[in-house]
Amino acid sequence: MTTGASGDRPAILARRARVLAPTYRLFYEEPLELVRAEGVWMYDAAGRRYLDAYNNVPVVGHCHPTVVEAIARQARTLNTHTRYLAELPLKLGEELLATMPPELGNIVYTCTGSEANDLAVRVSKAVTGGTGFIVTDFSYHGVTDVLSGMSPEDGGPLGPGVYAVPSPAAAGGPQAFGEHVAACLERMRAEGVSVAALLVDTIFSSDGVYADPKGFLAEAVRHVQSAGGLFIADEVQPGFGRLGETMWGFQRHGVVPDLATMGKPMGNGHPVAAVVARPDIFARFARRRHYFNTFGGNSVSCAAALAVLEVIREGRLLENVRRTGEHLARGLRALAQRTAAIAAVRGAGLFLGVELRANPMSGLNGAAEAKRVVNGMCRRGVLIGSTGRNADVLKIRAPLVLETAHADLLLEALEQTLNDRT
Amino acid sequence: MTTGASGDRPAILARRARVLAPTYRLFYEEPLELVRAEGVWMYDAAGRRYLDAYNNVPVVGHCHPTVVEAIARQARTLNTHTRYLAELPLKLGEELLATMPPELGNIVYTCTGSEANDLAVRVSKAVTGGTGFIVTDFSYHGVTDVLSGMSPEDGGPLGPGVYAVPSPAAAGGPQAFGEHVAACLERMRAEGVSVAALLVDTIFSSDGVYADPKGFLAEAVRHVQSAGGLFIADEVQPGFGRLGETMWGFQRHGVVPDLATMGKPMGNGHPVAAVVARPDIFARFARRRHYFNTFGGNSVSCAAALAVLEVIREGRLLENVRRTGEHLARGLRALAQRTAAIAAVRGAGLFLGVELRANPMSGLNGAAEAKRVVNGMCRRGVLIGSTGRNADVLKIRAPLVLETAHADLLLEALEQTLNDRT
Repeated sequence: MTTGASGDRPAILARRARVLAPTYRLFYEEPLELVRAEGVWMYDAAGRRYLDAYNNVPVVGHCHPTVVEAIARQARTLNTHTRYLAELPLKLGEELLATMPPELGNIVYTCTGSEANDLAVRVSKAVTGGTGFIVTDFSYHGVTDVLSGMSPEDGGPLGPGVYAVPSPAAAGGPQAFGEHVAACLERMRAEGVSVAALLVDTIFSSDGVYADPKGFLAEAVRHVQSAGGLFIADEVQPGFGRLGETMWGFQRHGVVPDLATMGKPMGNGHPVAAVVARPDIFARFARRRHYFNTFGGNSVSCAAALAVLEVIREGRLLENVRRTGEHLARGLRALAQRTAAIAAVRGAGLFLGVELRANPMSGLNGAAEAKRVVNGMCRRGVLIGSTGRNADVLKIRAPLVLETAHADLLLEALEQTLNDRT
Repeated sequence: MTTGASGDRPAILARRARVLAPTYRLFYEEPLELVRAEGVWMYDAAGRRYLDAYNNVPVVGHCHPTVVEAIARQARTLNTHTRYLAELPLKLGEELLATMPPELGNIVYTCTGSEANDLAVRVSKAVTGGTGFIVTDFSYHGVTDVLSGMSPEDGGPLGPGVYAVPSPAAAGGPQAFGEHVAACLERMRAEGVSVAALLVDTIFSSDGVYADPKGFLAEAVRHVQSAGGLFIADEVQPGFGRLGETMWGFQRHGVVPDLATMGKPMGNGHPVAAVVARPDIFARFARRRHYFNTFGGNSVSCAAALAVLEVIREGRLLENVRRTGEHLARGLRALAQRTAAIAAVRGAGLFLGVELRANPMSGLNGAAEAKRVVNGMCRRGVLIGSTGRNADVLKIRAPLVLETAHADLLLEALEQTLNDRT
């Protein structure tokens, strides 16, 4: 069986247009055909390599041998579900819960971050009896029907009972976030909507990456919990040590969520995700409903996730994230001094956002410049993306094994691209 | 790393109660701890083997070497998403669409059957502008928030705009199904609800397994399409050749759905699923919204699914399903002649339902007898389940590699269990 090498881009584009629904979108003006990857590197059909500073799924590096071997060994041995007794989902649950505050004592496995957020929403509604949800106004939480109505970035209307508060980019900045949530709760009360939960991506990725000041989330969480609502920390993007200081984004803010969801990096590419919550919350949900996810917590998914946790722990990857992340952020801030196009450098660890503004070198505004830079970086062999309401924030998220030499390659390519007139 | 062997059931039960949410449920009065599996056999921690005639996920047999090797090879090479060009999702799409009627020309990948059904629901609403859905009154379609309201088996209330029609078990039997749907459409019109779709599991698994007479679905589909609604064939359980005659359950009924969803067996345990639809339907959805599923169509999922299709094709497994399925159904019908407890044998291929009634041997009614039989079969080393509104239907679904000798073991264990007084 082929591993995917082709190299004939026009042919593959034509087949893609024929077979895949037009709901799909490709990255880059000249889409890449990638055929293999290892660590921080991805390789195209012509053998050219790209530094992956975009994909947050392969968190311990592409095709990490420990994870690959765990998947292969378990797939050869047994792959079954949670309606039989098994060691693996328990061991994984114990290891994950040990990284959490003691209040979050139970876990439910799903396959994707979308399924995890969808379940957290179901549980919040069932447990509070409320129907109101608060999200930020350019957030993204997943692809299911209910989550599409809670993901303003997705472009559709908000779902019934869903309220959007200004993102930390709005007037007053992150410091005003608590006030915005308080005002939203006031509006909900006035409109007779009982709050079920505040659902927040703790790095505000789609909103444009807002990490600081640490603790700015706390006031918002207090307001929601005082009103009888729950706080769901969406850790699908910031989780698993990407922010360097802590395993989970909410921990940087010194808050304890009622539910936390995780996904993307959990299996380094293997589809596995989870919801953790206070046991009393799951217990109240369980009084009315069961929840069985066929593939959730299956043997191979658990083996993959255990291997990821092992590599993060044994490789002391959080230390590496702090070291390389600080080096990269320092380099970006120095670059901001030398180039007019960088308006701000935000983020934590290896989740960085670089907000652009009009670049006199290219004559483009922030959004057009971000698009030019993302494509120019790709041509220079470095993969990054863009985000934010104005699409003017470069999104930099590398595997946690990124070294300072790799960061320097990125910085060099970025400086060249920003100074490039075409 | 452990592959999961433990054997200390009290300890593992205690850890499970501590770590996993109480939303989980175990199979069997004496839950099994399974530690390895191969083909049709699963093995517990003590080394005892069980014939797997229940799990429909490991469709080509547990730990099939072709699938395991495809997963391992691709996981070592590249595991990435559909925003780069790649051969694998195209090849998989081409092979899957080749098994479908020509009208169903486009595919979107998800990770689970729930995500596939949820997307089909989203698409139906967006494309028709309708909000009404028709499901059968003891059906199950998935775990997401919107699907929980379309899954009466799950025990919760129907969602807004969701109507339940009597299952094929109701008065008039399958022949009356079309009339029930027509009456439901009439009620929806009267209540001002515009129909979006009829969503049906084409083997009516949770309703109690209703396969015959072939074609009974056609009238219902005609009614819904005439009313401007779409027909979503939920192939998550019947798909991938399990019914023997055809790859997909809707094909037995001679109908062409507007959308079809697939999941469970697609990767033989690897989380991969999909929605196929008429290209014009996806095109209309795509005019308003993108859809990106991070793990959906990833390299390893596609490699797993391609390997499953290869094994089904090269192993001529549909022929085996017909041969073994007929042998098993014949044996069950003969058994029904010899025992008072079997009320009916239904199904197709290797998806069989055995409806029980009061058993003079045990003195139990149908539901209690089904529970006793499922547990008794397990003690005799054969895994089956139960289904149906009254929980009185034995659910028999073995890997497609089941041989007649295995079927005979099942028949012998079933006869012994039915005749067992305890």
